[in-house]
Amino acid sequence: MSEVVKVGILGRGTVGGAFRKLLTERAEMVEEVSGRRPEISGVLSSKEGDFEEILADSEIVVELIGGTDPALDYVTRALREGRHVVTANKQLLAQHGPELVAAARQGGAQLRFEAAVAGAIPVIRVVQESLGAIPIEKVFGIVNGTTNYILTQMARSGLSYEEALTQAQELGYAEADPTDDVGGADAAAKMAILARLAFGAPVRLDEVPYEGIERIKPDDIAYAKELGLSLKLLGVAERVGGGEISVRVFPCFLYPGHPLSPIEGPFNAVMVESPAITEITMSGPGAGGPETAAAVLGDVVSVIGGGSPLFEENAGLRIADDVEMAFYLHLEVDDRPGVLAQIAEVLGDHEVSVRSVVQRGMGDEAQLIMVMHPVAEKRFAAALEKIAKLEFLRSPPRSIRVIEEEFG
Amino acid sequence: MSEVVKVGILGRGTVGGAFRKLLTERAEMVEEVSGRRPEISGVLSSKEGDFEEILADSEIVVELIGGTDPALDYVTRALREGRHVVTANKQLLAQHGPELVAAARQGGAQLRFEAAVAGAIPVIRVVQESLGAIPIEKVFGIVNGTTNYILTQMARSGLSYEEALTQAQELGYAEADPTDDVGGADAAAKMAILARLAFGAPVRLDEVPYEGIERIKPDDIAYAKELGLSLKLLGVAERVGGGEISVRVFPCFLYPGHPLSPIEGPFNAVMVESPAITEITMSGPGAGGPETAAAVLGDVVSVIGGGSPLFEENAGLRIADDVEMAFYLHLEVDDRPGVLAQIAEVLGDHEVSVRSVVQRGMGDEAQLIMVMHPVAEKRFAAALEKIAKLEFLRSPPRSIRVIEEEFG
Repeated sequence: MSEVVKVGILGRGTVGGAFRKLLTERAEMVEEVSGRRPEISGVLSSKEGDFEEILADSEIVVELIGGTDPALDYVTRALREGRHVVTANKQLLAQHGPELVAAARQGGAQLRFEAAVAGAIPVIRVVQESLGAIPIEKVFGIVNGTTNYILTQMARSGLSYEEALTQAQELGYAEADPTDDVGGADAAAKMAILARLAFGAPVRLDEVPYEGIERIKPDDIAYAKELGLSLKLLGVAERVGGGEISVRVFPCFLYPGHPLSPIEGPFNAVMVESPAITEITMSGPGAGGPETAAAVLGDVVSVIGGGSPLFEENAGLRIADDVEMAFYLHLEVDDRPGVLAQIAEVLGDHEVSVRSVVQRGMGDEAQLIMVMHPVAEKRFAAALEKIAKLEFLRSPPRSIRVIEEEFG
Repeated sequence: MSEVVKVGILGRGTVGGAFRKLLTERAEMVEEVSGRRPEISGVLSSKEGDFEEILADSEIVVELIGGTDPALDYVTRALREGRHVVTANKQLLAQHGPELVAAARQGGAQLRFEAAVAGAIPVIRVVQESLGAIPIEKVFGIVNGTTNYILTQMARSGLSYEEALTQAQELGYAEADPTDDVGGADAAAKMAILARLAFGAPVRLDEVPYEGIERIKPDDIAYAKELGLSLKLLGVAERVGGGEISVRVFPCFLYPGHPLSPIEGPFNAVMVESPAITEITMSGPGAGGPETAAAVLGDVVSVIGGGSPLFEENAGLRIADDVEMAFYLHLEVDDRPGVLAQIAEVLGDHEVSVRSVVQRGMGDEAQLIMVMHPVAEKRFAAALEKIAKLEFLRSPPRSIRVIEEEFG
């Protein structure tokens, strides 16, 4: 066997360049293990190349343009016309995943996108190949390396959020415009993709609420360190019972011993939980150019190897309206009698149960640091809204979720 | 699509029973994602069932007998006659892997064995699907849950090896005859399988040297804890340059921050290193009945999904004759002048360079605890042999390897 497989590449950016180089370097090895030698049929950029020609001449189309226009049109057409598609484009998948899966079925083509989530960590494969064999209860983890780098530096060196962000930008771990990463939108797109795969539920991107890390203060991190807690931006997709799932992104304190606690710097890590296997954890570097290119090439090899990736469909699952979480609450208050009583009353009125309270500082420095027992998030939000209006608050309340389970 | 796929099961033990139950429970789900409904065509035990009938009536044969006789004969025949085989049998794979891969090629059948290594952690898949795309430099980790449980309990509770083993047996983490686990033979079989997959090298099981944990003393663990080190039984398969690889199993100290340090209890964890992806780490519970059954069913779903697992062949790679490692050395010595000088002389004669020495205790309790810089293992072994003969040694020297790199 030395049949050639033609690969058309859409996109000439960092990842496109890294992939082209890697494909050339590894062509012989790919042929050795798969029996077919990949050859580049054409490369499309905004300035050069012709999509129609590349489409006509390719068995596999690798989409590395990013964004949805014109990527959506190109990928849909390629799939419908029976071309296998490999893409690293998380926005495309998050916004149009179900249509693309339908187009792939229609054209009898494979659609693979390992590189869209968690860089070189093969989380898409593992979730997809678990389908049918094990019922996934929960997929969650650190799916954005930029925020994990920033939070790690804040904890290690006591930097402010702004200082850590600047450092991340200097080192290339954050973009010049970091909004999508630090605000949680990037993680939300990845969680929408993972949730759809894990549960087969038709999760829309606008159904994934997200919070970022912009408002995290060194104070919060200092508190966490004292208790051995680490702060991570988590993406969580889970079944919550009653035919409902919850898919969210939020900063969260983790207790020591949690498998995600030791994940530091620009790394990603994803856990898959199922009654059948307890849990597995996968970690590795986030999505740099070489890692993404390696994941894309892995998908190309899988396409050549044959076999269709699996997709489950479970339209019956609904997004949960509310879920329970524990919360940390940081309040800067006037230092006078009756303050704690009033706050406790508001919490009590909303059936929010306090697990611990610490008062720190005096006078203008007075702070209350509270941890709540798990509570329905909407009840806690309602209590927080009332607390924010209390006249003795010197600044807006800050709350961060807490995962209490200990592992191991 | 509602075509049936007939699955014959060989073996009625714990895993066989767990798999039968799981297959029945998940049949509908498997049909939903793969388009084909698995049905059991027959079950073979030493008392019941007929292999020929099951073979004739099955598209997939699941081998859960264990051992090599009659498993080797059954699996080879099934593959040659074009039946896909899924097995959890690490001895079969470790001793006869290349023949089985050849039989699978001959019969045009798939051979899958995710459950043979690291329970529900999809390490076989990840290594196999990386082939062609990324050149693997090193695969290593904790591939035996029994030993990791024992070492964890020794560190946590100061138990002796014997006490921790008894506890592991009571909890079902160790067999009544634990020899294969605690002696390292089980891990060696798994590393032979992983090395063959990762490098395509024809590694024979008898080429994998292994050491177990039977001789580890609470003293060694106490020393480790003081420095924040953790002790693990590691399996390592790596390229060492010059067309050579090294595949070994040994107890080893890990510095804090190493991704394998936090892996405790009966868990397994495997790291895959490649220049393209730096490293990925996968961890999860070791091989219990349900985890193994889940991994077997995952393979069955993959077989139904089509696509051949990849095997690389690189007959040119040789097993290295020697490798470099750092060592910890524990000596119980007479407390008198000149002792350290003599030991240092022996080490110097063998070009073994000492990184640190601590003397502890006095009189009959005197101990020397030394850490060496990385050194060719054979040179260190030669030095150790001479040291063992020094007349002032009160007991045989104990050495344990150390991995010095820090991560993160």
